[in-house]
Amino acid sequence: ASFLLWVGLAGLRMHLTTCPVVHPDMLNVHLVAHTHDDVGWLKTVDQYFYGIQNDVQHAGVQYILDSVISSLLVEPTRRFIYVEIAFFSRWWHQQTNATQEVVRDLVRQGRLEFANGGWVMNDEAATHYGAIIDQMTLGLRFLENTFGKDGRPRVAWHIDPFGHSREQASLFAQMGFDGFFFGRLDYQDKSVRKEKQQMEQVWRASASLEPPVADLFTSVLPNNYNPPDKLCWDTLCADKPFVEDPRSPEYNAKELVDYFLQLATAQGRYYRTNHTIMTMGSDFQYENANMWFKNLDRLIQLVNAQQANGSRVNVLYSTPACYLWELNKANLTWYLGGNGSLGGRPALKRYERLSYNFLQVCNQLEALAGPAANVGPYGSGDSAPLNEAMAVLQHHDAVSGTSRQHVANDYARQLAAGWGPCEVLLSNALARLSGSLGDLTYCRDLNISVCPLSQTFQVTIYNPLGRKVDWMVRLPVSEHIFDVRDPNGTIVPSDVVIAPSSDISELLFSASVPALGFSVYSVTQVPGRSSHAHNRHPRSQKSWSRVLAIQNEYLRARFDPDTGLLVELENLDQNLLLPVRQAFYWYNASVGNNLSTQASGAYIFRPDRQEPLIGSHWARTRVVKTPLVQEVHQNFSAWCSQVVRLYPGQRHLELEWTVGPIPVGDGWGKEIISRFDTVLETKGLFYTDSNGREILERRRDYRPTWKLNQTEPVAGNYYPVNSRIYIRDGKLQLTVLTDRSQGGSSLKDGSVELMVHRRLLKDDGRGVGEPLLEEGSGVWVRGRHLVLLDKAQTAATGHRLQAEKELLAPQVVLAPGGGAPYHPGVTPRKQVSGVGPPDREDPSEPRRVFLALGGTHFAPSPTTSTRSVARQSRLLLSPIPLRLGNLHPSLLPCTSPGPTAQPSPPRLDPAAITLQPMEIRTFLALVQWKEHG
Amino acid sequence: ASFLLWVGLAGLRMHLTTCPVVHPDMLNVHLVAHTHDDVGWLKTVDQYFYGIQNDVQHAGVQYILDSVISSLLVEPTRRFIYVEIAFFSRWWHQQTNATQEVVRDLVRQGRLEFANGGWVMNDEAATHYGAIIDQMTLGLRFLENTFGKDGRPRVAWHIDPFGHSREQASLFAQMGFDGFFFGRLDYQDKSVRKEKQQMEQVWRASASLEPPVADLFTSVLPNNYNPPDKLCWDTLCADKPFVEDPRSPEYNAKELVDYFLQLATAQGRYYRTNHTIMTMGSDFQYENANMWFKNLDRLIQLVNAQQANGSRVNVLYSTPACYLWELNKANLTWYLGGNGSLGGRPALKRYERLSYNFLQVCNQLEALAGPAANVGPYGSGDSAPLNEAMAVLQHHDAVSGTSRQHVANDYARQLAAGWGPCEVLLSNALARLSGSLGDLTYCRDLNISVCPLSQTFQVTIYNPLGRKVDWMVRLPVSEHIFDVRDPNGTIVPSDVVIAPSSDISELLFSASVPALGFSVYSVTQVPGRSSHAHNRHPRSQKSWSRVLAIQNEYLRARFDPDTGLLVELENLDQNLLLPVRQAFYWYNASVGNNLSTQASGAYIFRPDRQEPLIGSHWARTRVVKTPLVQEVHQNFSAWCSQVVRLYPGQRHLELEWTVGPIPVGDGWGKEIISRFDTVLETKGLFYTDSNGREILERRRDYRPTWKLNQTEPVAGNYYPVNSRIYIRDGKLQLTVLTDRSQGGSSLKDGSVELMVHRRLLKDDGRGVGEPLLEEGSGVWVRGRHLVLLDKAQTAATGHRLQAEKELLAPQVVLAPGGGAPYHPGVTPRKQVSGVGPPDREDPSEPRRVFLALGGTHFAPSPTTSTRSVARQSRLLLSPIPLRLGNLHPSLLPCTSPGPTAQPSPPRLDPAAITLQPMEIRTFLALVQWKEHG
Repeated sequence: ASFLLWVGLAGLRMHLTTCPVVHPDMLNVHLVAHTHDDVGWLKTVDQYFYGIQNDVQHAGVQYILDSVISSLLVEPTRRFIYVEIAFFSRWWHQQTNATQEVVRDLVRQGRLEFANGGWVMNDEAATHYGAIIDQMTLGLRFLENTFGKDGRPRVAWHIDPFGHSREQASLFAQMGFDGFFFGRLDYQDKSVRKEKQQMEQVWRASASLEPPVADLFTSVLPNNYNPPDKLCWDTLCADKPFVEDPRSPEYNAKELVDYFLQLATAQGRYYRTNHTIMTMGSDFQYENANMWFKNLDRLIQLVNAQQANGSRVNVLYSTPACYLWELNKANLTWYLGGNGSLGGRPALKRYERLSYNFLQVCNQLEALAGPAANVGPYGSGDSAPLNEAMAVLQHHDAVSGTSRQHVANDYARQLAAGWGPCEVLLSNALARLSGSLGDLTYCRDLNISVCPLSQTFQVTIYNPLGRKVDWMVRLPVSEHIFDVRDPNGTIVPSDVVIAPSSDISELLFSASVPALGFSVYSVTQVPGRSSHAHNRHPRSQKSWSRVLAIQNEYLRARFDPDTGLLVELENLDQNLLLPVRQAFYWYNASVGNNLSTQASGAYIFRPDRQEPLIGSHWARTRVVKTPLVQEVHQNFSAWCSQVVRLYPGQRHLELEWTVGPIPVGDGWGKEIISRFDTVLETKGLFYTDSNGREILERRRDYRPTWKLNQTEPVAGNYYPVNSRIYIRDGKLQLTVLTDRSQGGSSLKDGSVELMVHRRLLKDDGRGVGEPLLEEGSGVWVRGRHLVLLDKAQTAATGHRLQAEKELLAPQVVLAPGGGAPYHPGVTPRKQVSGVGPPDREDPSEPRRVFLALGGTHFAPSPTTSTRSVARQSRLLLSPIPLRLGNLHPSLLPCTSPGPTAQPSPPRLDPAAITLQPMEIRTFLALVQWKEHG
Repeated sequence: ASFLLWVGLAGLRMHLTTCPVVHPDMLNVHLVAHTHDDVGWLKTVDQYFYGIQNDVQHAGVQYILDSVISSLLVEPTRRFIYVEIAFFSRWWHQQTNATQEVVRDLVRQGRLEFANGGWVMNDEAATHYGAIIDQMTLGLRFLENTFGKDGRPRVAWHIDPFGHSREQASLFAQMGFDGFFFGRLDYQDKSVRKEKQQMEQVWRASASLEPPVADLFTSVLPNNYNPPDKLCWDTLCADKPFVEDPRSPEYNAKELVDYFLQLATAQGRYYRTNHTIMTMGSDFQYENANMWFKNLDRLIQLVNAQQANGSRVNVLYSTPACYLWELNKANLTWYLGGNGSLGGRPALKRYERLSYNFLQVCNQLEALAGPAANVGPYGSGDSAPLNEAMAVLQHHDAVSGTSRQHVANDYARQLAAGWGPCEVLLSNALARLSGSLGDLTYCRDLNISVCPLSQTFQVTIYNPLGRKVDWMVRLPVSEHIFDVRDPNGTIVPSDVVIAPSSDISELLFSASVPALGFSVYSVTQVPGRSSHAHNRHPRSQKSWSRVLAIQNEYLRARFDPDTGLLVELENLDQNLLLPVRQAFYWYNASVGNNLSTQASGAYIFRPDRQEPLIGSHWARTRVVKTPLVQEVHQNFSAWCSQVVRLYPGQRHLELEWTVGPIPVGDGWGKEIISRFDTVLETKGLFYTDSNGREILERRRDYRPTWKLNQTEPVAGNYYPVNSRIYIRDGKLQLTVLTDRSQGGSSLKDGSVELMVHRRLLKDDGRGVGEPLLEEGSGVWVRGRHLVLLDKAQTAATGHRLQAEKELLAPQVVLAPGGGAPYHPGVTPRKQVSGVGPPDREDPSEPRRVFLALGGTHFAPSPTTSTRSVARQSRLLLSPIPLRLGNLHPSLLPCTSPGPTAQPSPPRLDPAAITLQPMEIRTFLALVQWKEHG
């Protein structure tokens, strides 16, 4: 019922003066010449850009852009849209000034238009909203810097991603896009929409944001993003070009015109106005743009010539923005609608999330330390490479896991290459802020290997959150006893324990770190052996006790002493008890045979039967209990183990699983899940986050906008889980937080499952052309699930705070003790917070800093409207040690809607910026840094 | 020994001011950007031009030319050569005036250069020299008319044809080309040439012409016509483009530069000067020219930048003409050298030869009748379509038989479409010249079906030869008696005989026709049955006589009465007797198995064993003897029969064979030959014509320029036979004239064989991709071999005259009797000769007529030098009924060498033009036609 609202498009913020002339009393067919350039898929980004490995896939983006620009110059009515700024910006930097000027003219005249304008066309299923904003920002800022307001995209253009998330639409609405075009949707959904003329409607994309902030006009393109059958005139197609010479045996001009007229008329029936759109282009097309444009010129000329014979079809070069502009002028009210894909490569997905974390640290320290972060004692620091690499990772074939193996390797290479300059930046910034020069070390493999350390060393922990955190530091060390001192020189409790599944010892201590700041702890090796040597060979718990449990002040987890499996979770604080049985299972992947013709692969999850098989009915266990941690180590099999862990003060149970290499010697591909079974009566409902932000209710075997014919009882109920999934009854809620994007579902009432790893032997025939086998780096994977048991009414606070803490975890940097001071005579500082009284100003030039502020309030429940609880949140920016000069709402994401005709946005008072719940706003600030630390 | 002459290039006629600057003290690498555009092969001409069926082969010439012009404009140092005017002229006519002006500028500046410049790049093996001149004329005249002297090609460019004929080189020399580049030659030959630095030399291409008339500088390209390995930057290739950004994982600029330097140095060693050429392009490349040029720009820039580091390699955009210009400046003397392919599709080859004949008639009547031929009572007549179709047929995949079946069908369609406008032209011209309007009928299928005729009809016979001929007219008729009257009304002898292998009767009478003129004969049906009804069911010759022979006043042919095979030929006139056994055999085609890995196909003739199998050891025979003809009909099998025939007054024996459909139900492809075995002691020598003009001596298992390692005893000794093959001992010569291009050889002393038909089940893997099966039109074939027995010393006169008569056979046109007069009151004329006293002049504007005059003298023997016998032949042009105004030597083929710097060629006295033996000269004449007939 709430979907039956009708809204107008009066809010359209366009002022398009460059659009082509249409015929108000005819059917206007808007031809949109475009190319879809994947930022990596079967080839790497560089291979696509330059046109390398054209025998694998013929595609060379440098030539596409050369060619399109040349062709646009030939005939002034021709138009083209370009989308992927990762490619465009690279091409741009290789052009001469003269070419750049020509391109600026084309953009100014609307002949070259940017759509979407992100660095990539991001995935919607496996992406976190923070990373989406970052990648859109990178692309849109390039366009603004290069073309000013002429370069601003007016429409979002997600033509290729499989599945669309509500959060994505909400973000696009908040970024100020006037409309959203997409290509792929469920064929059942599309068929209903065509019938009801609902291919175009307004999507209310947030239950929290006050309308129309998250309202977005959406248009389903008629033919995905491809040209109509028989009308593909690219070098990659083989359709017949126009032959106008009637003496030629290949003469076909009349036949083509007749066909087009019939086609346009038929298509027009599914759309409400006398305008309809046709995408003339596809993957990596327009490498020889002349082929396309030459034939489109003829199509337009010959079809419109039929108007003299009474035809009522008018065909023209157009763009999505100009098409939308015409719809807007039609002044209709639009049906209001509301509305996943699953990939493999869990290692890449975790690396992406980890890099997001690191990039935020890098960006923050660049803002906090100013120019001293970029050029300093450690060399040239730069956040741009990691920013760009992270943006590339958001591409819908990257983080989604649907690229080829060598491309996935290249994505990882790009991240790794981006980390380097960020590490230099961090070193410069930390030295500047702490006033101390040490030999800083970033142990990227801190979780698996011992970092080379001296007997005395310093541990700097930077906290990117806007609030103080306590964090359990774990450092692999040789087996010794250590003294750990806090920034004040006070010894804090520490411990050395055996790491799971290895002989490596880890030093544990809890660090306290201020908001947007860091603390420096000192560690000194003390003579003697570790006091916890007994941990090394624990006797089986089974032999000396019938109780197998771990607990802290908030939680108690109980295990079956016979099987070693988790069986019960108790919230001691709130006095809640829930039987929870957790184990690992695997789905037998369909290989494309009689049982199911579709094989399971990179794109398609397709088990060959509904019930998964259990990995192991029992686990070999050992227990570690020290003052700083309690752990149960479960060993299920040679390729599956888990540590279930509780630290003091934590309100969640941590399950750190290690899976792989998945055995496939039996010829069966396997998709491994971790499943939690409870007695909660969930009535088919479960909840997943949308891009790490809002929560969506999911119902088994159901779609909200059409009557579903469920043919896939498992895969058809899987949804992307970016950060959390939960189930609840009227009283209790069991939440599982993830450390990366995974697929998840609740296939039985009371049950929650998450897919942790996949290894497949067949390609699923969707283009990638190789099975998801992941020889090499992806063979084994480690990850963490955080489990919370709460009262249903108040659970949100807990999982939201904890999820933030996971996403923006502290960054640990090591150094041998006793570095030189940064400035002679200035005492180094062992604890610094970015939130504090302002200091003296830096005499250097102020710089522009791009700020994104997100509202962290949220609707208490996804099923109740939150408009009633909208509150103003007053942000106090002054404590940040930056002098905010001119603070302007940015034209870029995520601008609040406002009059865009105004040439210069208004100044804001930095001390009083209001955010709606779930609203995200961005600002450009003029900043001067303080002098010295 | 005669090859050891050295000649200079002093005669080079170039004056190139637009060539690029070179480095005199470095190795200069001339990059020649080019495309090779087959005028039909796997696709038809129209499909190639427009880019249709790109799934069969990606190729669209319209886009190539668009793209090249755009790319040339981007950077002024870029250059390109274009070759095939069949495509270029079509493209040109579709361009706007503005584009045409841009292209004219590019040509003027030497940035776009034409090479070869014929309508097509003609085949050298299966083409007649007359058709070669015609097709070159068509292309070169287009260039001259469009671009003036700027468009004139300076080099011949035959990079793709398999095998090269001496006549082709002679024609190119006489056309005034400065050099001849080719790509393909025998790998053994090439290897020797590289070793000896003889990749470039002067070819003395005629034994008859006075040097240096037929001397031609020839250059063997280093890599056929392809770019070097790894340096193909076309959309059809997959080589890596330049990546100059050292941060890219694909960075390769240094590696490519090093590779190129090493490559250029190595290649330079095989050539004599400090210049070397690299062809940068291949089949249908440059559809997206930007890809090529962008990378070539970088190659040139980066390689030449190495000169600063001491490199001695200078790379530049160039053209073949500019390369040759540099060689010329090197002022060296060049080694003087002297030097086939076989196709199927005999039906197409015959249709081509027949069309050549018809086109000459059409062109002659256009010249004789003037404008009245083009617009007249029968409509608009036009020789251009047949001219163009014939030019297209000369392409090296057309008449050669190496195209796909559907393309061969399209070639035939083009010829058929060309015949129509020529028939209208003939009708207009004949009406104008005869002064009579009749309902003219061209029975194209005169040889196989009855033409619908009334009881009285007129037969117009036009003779395109420059001398009177007597010709046996054969018309299929219903079985009646006819009176035939000559132009004077006198009854001439006639006869009705049964046609071979059918029940159709044919009317025979001998017609006498004046030079370049026509005679009109009248035929009237007379009541009663044919007097030769007994021919219908002849008894077997065998049963009533032991002698089976036919004869006329000059020849007697004897057959074995038991087998029915020809066994003896006697020249009664000269009293020469030679046992000649003729029969049909077939080679079992290799299918590509253990016996031979190469299958026999369109390109490759490869029998699976050396000895052919006989088709039939005996023939069923019947004999026809009337006053006008004596025939033996031989029926060898269901798919092979022959009529051996003698007309009164003929000095040759005619063998009309009918072969097909070749049975392949046994799974074996078959290649059928007609073989003549004699006792002549020929010592491994035999003789074939070169493009229908001069004769070349062939020696079994031998090549004149290198020591042959003969691996193919059959195919390795096959040579193209365009018009004749002969064997001789000291005394006798047996000559076989063909009616089309065939393959032939003499595999044993005293033996001559000709391949008449092929039907194959396998593709030979050379690109055409289908077997030479010829379902449909090519299934059965009829043709004629004319056999002459003469004294060796005097045989040439006989076969030369007879070959001319076959090539330029009379054209027969039918009409019902009693047409209206063309001009009221003017009596129609029944016999007209173009050679006669001039008449009154036409008052209309004079027109330019292109004349080609060929010397018909020849060297008496191919083994003796003929310079000593060079004679001046005074041509009498005045009898031709045209007023020749300004007669200028044409700039076009086939100009004698002369100073080209002279802006206007000198006037000539039409009454005294001298031709050397075998010389061909062309002229542009200003002509006015006489008034009325």
